[in-house]
Amino acid sequence: MARINEHYLKLQAGYLFPEIGRRVGAFSKEHPDASIIKLGIGDVTEPLVPAVVEAMHAAVDEMATEAGFRGYGPEQGYDFLNEAIREHDFASRGVHLDADELFISDGSKCDSGNIQEIFGLDNVVALTDPVYPVYLDTNVMAGRSGPADDEGRYAGIVYMPATAENSFTPTPPNVPVDLIYLCSPNNPTGMAATREQLAMWVNYAKENGAVILFDAAYEGFISNPDIPHSIYEIEGAREVALEFRSFSKSAGFTGTRCAFTVVPKEVMGTTAAGEKVPLNGLWNRRHCTKFNGVSYPVQRAAAAVYTPQGREQTRKIVSFYMENAVQIREGLAAAGFEVFGGVDAPYIWFRTPAQMSSWDFFDQLLRKTEVVGTPGSGFGPSGEGYFRLSAFNSRENVEEALRRIAAASW
Amino acid sequence: MARINEHYLKLQAGYLFPEIGRRVGAFSKEHPDASIIKLGIGDVTEPLVPAVVEAMHAAVDEMATEAGFRGYGPEQGYDFLNEAIREHDFASRGVHLDADELFISDGSKCDSGNIQEIFGLDNVVALTDPVYPVYLDTNVMAGRSGPADDEGRYAGIVYMPATAENSFTPTPPNVPVDLIYLCSPNNPTGMAATREQLAMWVNYAKENGAVILFDAAYEGFISNPDIPHSIYEIEGAREVALEFRSFSKSAGFTGTRCAFTVVPKEVMGTTAAGEKVPLNGLWNRRHCTKFNGVSYPVQRAAAAVYTPQGREQTRKIVSFYMENAVQIREGLAAAGFEVFGGVDAPYIWFRTPAQMSSWDFFDQLLRKTEVVGTPGSGFGPSGEGYFRLSAFNSRENVEEALRRIAAASW
Repeated sequence: MARINEHYLKLQAGYLFPEIGRRVGAFSKEHPDASIIKLGIGDVTEPLVPAVVEAMHAAVDEMATEAGFRGYGPEQGYDFLNEAIREHDFASRGVHLDADELFISDGSKCDSGNIQEIFGLDNVVALTDPVYPVYLDTNVMAGRSGPADDEGRYAGIVYMPATAENSFTPTPPNVPVDLIYLCSPNNPTGMAATREQLAMWVNYAKENGAVILFDAAYEGFISNPDIPHSIYEIEGAREVALEFRSFSKSAGFTGTRCAFTVVPKEVMGTTAAGEKVPLNGLWNRRHCTKFNGVSYPVQRAAAAVYTPQGREQTRKIVSFYMENAVQIREGLAAAGFEVFGGVDAPYIWFRTPAQMSSWDFFDQLLRKTEVVGTPGSGFGPSGEGYFRLSAFNSRENVEEALRRIAAASW
Repeated sequence: MARINEHYLKLQAGYLFPEIGRRVGAFSKEHPDASIIKLGIGDVTEPLVPAVVEAMHAAVDEMATEAGFRGYGPEQGYDFLNEAIREHDFASRGVHLDADELFISDGSKCDSGNIQEIFGLDNVVALTDPVYPVYLDTNVMAGRSGPADDEGRYAGIVYMPATAENSFTPTPPNVPVDLIYLCSPNNPTGMAATREQLAMWVNYAKENGAVILFDAAYEGFISNPDIPHSIYEIEGAREVALEFRSFSKSAGFTGTRCAFTVVPKEVMGTTAAGEKVPLNGLWNRRHCTKFNGVSYPVQRAAAAVYTPQGREQTRKIVSFYMENAVQIREGLAAAGFEVFGGVDAPYIWFRTPAQMSSWDFFDQLLRKTEVVGTPGSGFGPSGEGYFRLSAFNSRENVEEALRRIAAASW
């Protein structure tokens, strides 16, 4: 008899965004004339920039010719993209990476979800709470947790609350943990870790033989010059940290699909017998066995982000979103909300009014203002009582959403 | 201490194709003037067809406009592609699929590698031998096997030899198994399963509560009208089989990346307590949690394969490759080789001369003729003494390769 992976049955409800989609769909059906403004899922809204479009067209034309056609490429990605990434995202900030420490993929969701496969099932996983649900769900699915309790906390997972009370900067746990997921600039809280905070984590990992899984998908939105863009700007991080990056938000690639993961050769895991094994080789094996490379025109499109035109054009769009973020921060504060984040990240995190639950506020916001946001509790128990709005929308929609929120009574 | 997934350490050598790449690279370095002809890895060589190129350009242009821009799409793929697939690949052959039984992805390697995640670790896996290495390696990596023996057979895996002695058509094993990987038309043997053979497997699965993982990535190459293109052409298959399909070979998408998986709602797995759970929901959860949809322009490109122009243009290319296959079959036979496959699949499988080992023949073929093929033993112990050539190349290169093989002494 074919047996299922019963760990899947531990998962709570649907994955957050499908559930939002379901509720919005039901509302739209009841109110077909509603003019809904979506500031929920962190999805970009501005078109691809001209440099990217041009490069993608050129690559498609290559694929139409005998001389230019490309079949399977290297699973890890083409050199032209690998080199551009290493030069512009790392060397420019004093971080040297070897070519074979970089793995180009079709998304950070995939990479941050798949990375746990190279680790044993007996590792203790530590997560900030609230957290991007993929880190947690993929570990539950793999069997690194027990069942969830009534508040949605899975047994065996170490939750590190990040709330207004600790300025959203959890410190390393008292219990030893093995795998630590960090995200900075943070989704969902919109806060970014300082150099000192990251150094504290790197030191903890070195002392405890832990590995940090560092998600920097939003690094392109950092405005404060003191905030590190890569964890490898911290001394010693090459020995203990992997890093995830994405073109999704900074270059508008959510529908185009390209990302990458850095696995420095110094990062080790151990066997039960205590032997040290480089994670680079394990991830390379995983990547080559279960992935077949990113679409060639998409890789050319991603490389165009690093041309002078591409950098200039994408920088403008990031600035545009971050001006939205300022408006949202200020608009919500003026409407009486307690607001966090939104300075180094395209997310604004705020307390729900009158201690309303996150999902209740979701429903009320939708009903009163036809604005869609993301309930904080969808990101973990400590997100309860908070709410996330994203800066990804037109200026007009952002202003209209804020007008409606200000006009509503809470 | 972060512990690694030690099952990775059981894996034998490198994944087959990187190892071939390594040997060819070393040869090229030693012989920089060699005119190497690659008939090894099953990678297409003809450019994308005009209908596909046009559709992809149009989609890229959409992405450049505010009105046409697409961010995250449905993880399972867009309706326009879902509908085209169901109509042309299934309804046209009398197979009805619901829209939510289809999951569009970036490749069959990914899908056939990831599918095992929704199953428990205690399932017994049955594979034909030789086999596409991804099915085996991903189960070893997940922990469904013990270590490999000297011949490369992993403990706990049920190998079903497919050799000339049984006409490459293994029958269901005597021991009960839970997950059965079948591939037809077959990679690597180039043989296709008949309706009767598939019905035998469907019956076995029904009687034993097993699930068939049916890889039909090469269905576009079937020439014999009696060979089923989908396992769902067999009565009862909807209750026991999942199916993998790909645009890679039939539409030249190896570098463009699109595929899909069918999970009918009737297919069930069981819990330890004996409760039946539909696999469709489990795969949907996996897909939504660890994947973020295929690039929009790529999905538009795939949909163009189903337009009248796209069908006509891709049919021509498939015919071209299959004419190559005929030449290779006939050329090898004329040169004294014992040849199989190549009628309903773009692969020609043949015995090595003088009982030479597969890797020895690989090296000799490379040295004597500068032709690259794939050693049969790379696909499993029962592939030892066999060799695979693929029909994916220009006519000129195929003819030149055959001339060189005929001229060499074996």
